[in-house]
Amino acid sequence: MTSPQHIVINDVGPRDGLQNQPKVLSIEERSSLINALIDAQLPAIEVGAIVSPKAVPAMAGSTELLSTLPANASHYSMLIPNQKGYELGRDAGAPVMSLVIATSNTMNEKNIRRTTDDIMQQSMNILAQAKAENQCVQAYLATAWACPFEGQMSLDSLLSLGAQLLEAGANKLIIADTIGAASPDQVAVFMNKLVTEWGSEKLACHFHDTRAMGLANVYAAIEQGVREFDASIAGLGGCPFAPGASGNVATEDVTLLVEQMGFRTGIDLEKLISAADLAITLTGTAQGGRSKRWLEKNLASVATN
Amino acid sequence: MTSPQHIVINDVGPRDGLQNQPKVLSIEERSSLINALIDAQLPAIEVGAIVSPKAVPAMAGSTELLSTLPANASHYSMLIPNQKGYELGRDAGAPVMSLVIATSNTMNEKNIRRTTDDIMQQSMNILAQAKAENQCVQAYLATAWACPFEGQMSLDSLLSLGAQLLEAGANKLIIADTIGAASPDQVAVFMNKLVTEWGSEKLACHFHDTRAMGLANVYAAIEQGVREFDASIAGLGGCPFAPGASGNVATEDVTLLVEQMGFRTGIDLEKLISAADLAITLTGTAQGGRSKRWLEKNLASVATN
Repeated sequence: MTSPQHIVINDVGPRDGLQNQPKVLSIEERSSLINALIDAQLPAIEVGAIVSPKAVPAMAGSTELLSTLPANASHYSMLIPNQKGYELGRDAGAPVMSLVIATSNTMNEKNIRRTTDDIMQQSMNILAQAKAENQCVQAYLATAWACPFEGQMSLDSLLSLGAQLLEAGANKLIIADTIGAASPDQVAVFMNKLVTEWGSEKLACHFHDTRAMGLANVYAAIEQGVREFDASIAGLGGCPFAPGASGNVATEDVTLLVEQMGFRTGIDLEKLISAADLAITLTGTAQGGRSKRWLEKNLASVATN
Repeated sequence: MTSPQHIVINDVGPRDGLQNQPKVLSIEERSSLINALIDAQLPAIEVGAIVSPKAVPAMAGSTELLSTLPANASHYSMLIPNQKGYELGRDAGAPVMSLVIATSNTMNEKNIRRTTDDIMQQSMNILAQAKAENQCVQAYLATAWACPFEGQMSLDSLLSLGAQLLEAGANKLIIADTIGAASPDQVAVFMNKLVTEWGSEKLACHFHDTRAMGLANVYAAIEQGVREFDASIAGLGGCPFAPGASGNVATEDVTLLVEQMGFRTGIDLEKLISAADLAITLTGTAQGGRSKRWLEKNLASVATN
């Protein structure tokens, strides 16, 4: 008898989700959502971003928020845009910090007014410092399959940027379809190459449902050996640079998919539904995952944990 | 240079979709929806069902409806529950008639109060008559992966029933996840076997999005060589025997998926969006496919035809 394989789901609702909601939540509300996810035994949660509160009001006070959370109750990560963010995150005790590098130069220039070379140089410096200071830093490779400005992206830039980041000590690479543009055949081609190159333990995927292909993309990545995924409670989110873009794949949908495929997530589905209800109440805009209604009626029939 | 492969999409909105809507449409309204699908160049459309108007008011007058449609503008099919239905369909000039056999005996008994043996015997008789009369009859194998009463189904009954139906002259088998219960790994296992056994030209798949896996299941079936799918304009539908079940996979979502994968459908996406808008207006309940909003803004960037 072999024990079932595990898939790690990282809930990015409290960051990628809330950042793209029209309503700005208080630190207490954000904390309550994260605690609901902890109750549901999410193994990893992106709790916030250390960014200018002027630029991103929804993420104001993220280090303060972190200090309200129970220590080690989940694998907490925080997004950092630069070295100052790294130092603030380190000082606040962020267990994992996430860099973001778009594989598209135009996206980097439009999004953060820096070239890819600039942002890579900064990332290498942060990774070197993190190594010296024994901090865990991972990197998002954004617009991995397509960029709203440059269109379809090549695998070459992904391979080149990813190799440099891993070499510099990045703990993991999260390959992100930032604008929800990839189709599952494209996901299969890229992830097949990346898993072969770097191994699945160094990789995660991040999908949006903009073109309705989010879950198909998760499946395509699993087939290539990917075992870690970002997802967002109740499907919170979107992308501010792509109006009309849907949110991240919903945590409840991804959890049901992988559990039914025979993987184990450790997530408590009943409490996950409660967390989704809370996300819907707090934001007033989230819809909940498409499987939520079915899940509510059939919790007993889904084997988890 | 190889020419792109083709995928056939059969819109079942006017039958499987409307049959499960709370609002009963008039024949004129149903005809207007079908004509919008014809305008969008849907290659196949399930236009109605020849059933008792008492039992299924939404499908009343389906042969009359057929007579209002332009001849040969699409591959029209009609669902028939028995020999009387076959004869009415034949006399009305239905180009294709569809039998439905659940692979689950309990489902057959609950749904139509007959055993699988009974319904198979009836189906064999109809297929024999259709062969003698040169009529095109295909067969749905319903609850192929799972039944609400019996749970997960085995591949054996599917193989046995399917072989008998093909042997008796069924033009095609449509493997239907009637209650939207299958996950893509399960779809891959079954369709791999069936395509190997009977060839993809004898097969189509029919998926519902109840557990949010509809598009992932379409992708999994494509990977196994399936090249024909049912879908429902604007995601109309559901299953009356499974409250809370979502509708069929939306035609606009399936079309976008397969076109982006490099297949050709022949469908005019702009007119497809108009047909979805009409379905939403007529029913008052349909939501539209999840990709619809993105598609509306990005029609120009999607290469079709």
